[in-house]
Amino acid sequence: MDVFEAISSRRSIRRYKSKKVGKKKLMRIIEAGRLAPSATNRQPWHFIVVTDPVIKKKLGESYPKDWFVSAPVIIVACADPSNAWVRADGEEYWKVDVAIAMQNMVLCAKEEGLGTCWIANFDEKIVKEVLGIPSGIRVVAMTPLGYPDEVKGKVHDRKPLEEILHFEHW
Amino acid sequence: MDVFEAISSRRSIRRYKSKKVGKKKLMRIIEAGRLAPSATNRQPWHFIVVTDPVIKKKLGESYPKDWFVSAPVIIVACADPSNAWVRADGEEYWKVDVAIAMQNMVLCAKEEGLGTCWIANFDEKIVKEVLGIPSGIRVVAMTPLGYPDEVKGKVHDRKPLEEILHFEHW
Repeated sequence: MDVFEAISSRRSIRRYKSKKVGKKKLMRIIEAGRLAPSATNRQPWHFIVVTDPVIKKKLGESYPKDWFVSAPVIIVACADPSNAWVRADGEEYWKVDVAIAMQNMVLCAKEEGLGTCWIANFDEKIVKEVLGIPSGIRVVAMTPLGYPDEVKGKVHDRKPLEEILHFEHW
Repeated sequence: MDVFEAISSRRSIRRYKSKKVGKKKLMRIIEAGRLAPSATNRQPWHFIVVTDPVIKKKLGESYPKDWFVSAPVIIVACADPSNAWVRADGEEYWKVDVAIAMQNMVLCAKEEGLGTCWIANFDEKIVKEVLGIPSGIRVVAMTPLGYPDEVKGKVHDRKPLEEILHFEHW
């Protein structure tokens, strides 16, 4: 699938089939994340792949939506800020780095015929407790992963170019 | 170009030809950014496209590398935090949102035969002064954009899966 087609046809999927995700597809998606660029190549990311129904259910307490837990896989994308690049003025880039890796995985999933949904509105404390994530590690985002059980998710409007695009200066 | 191929073959390009980037390609890349998902669809991004040699040269003071300024286009990706979603615990997501949009553009550029290089190590104050960016707006990242003048950029090693991948829990 072409890059632009993947980008433009991808939707957030909030209904998943119970069909399992094959290991080959899953590992290709993880590889897409692993290959992401990052500030000074620090790669401050950790990916946790959750498929165990008991753990998934517990993880669901951090984001209590049935469709989230119903996906066969949940990918939890974490950052290790202690291993990430920081700009001279103190600006941190671990959120950016992990977001790049996650979007690589999300687009690769689309190519593999799999749905995803960026989740940000979770209770980070619960995620860390359930998955045994060390205190210094941050959870940046999660996504369910599985075969979509809807033709396409809700199409959200995007702002027109006039509102977001500037030529030469603001 | 397939998504995985774009992800796996893309390199940071630090040498550009002077050849101009056609409007059609440029607008397709911007569209890839515009279509990105964002937390609660707030789309808190602004993209500034700089091609004017005088402005590019001034912008180069924020990141003094000849190859940066030599690219025919520089895309400056900004965030408007006042228009972005914030989690209940105060965690901000505008960096994540803008990073998603930027990575869409970077991958789309690869498909269009164009090189990019994520730039984070800039002097944000200078960027804002040069481009007249309002005080409340943040500059998240920049990238040069143009035809690569190197077969491929330096290949950086990536961490092996054992260091970054966890199954079921940390």
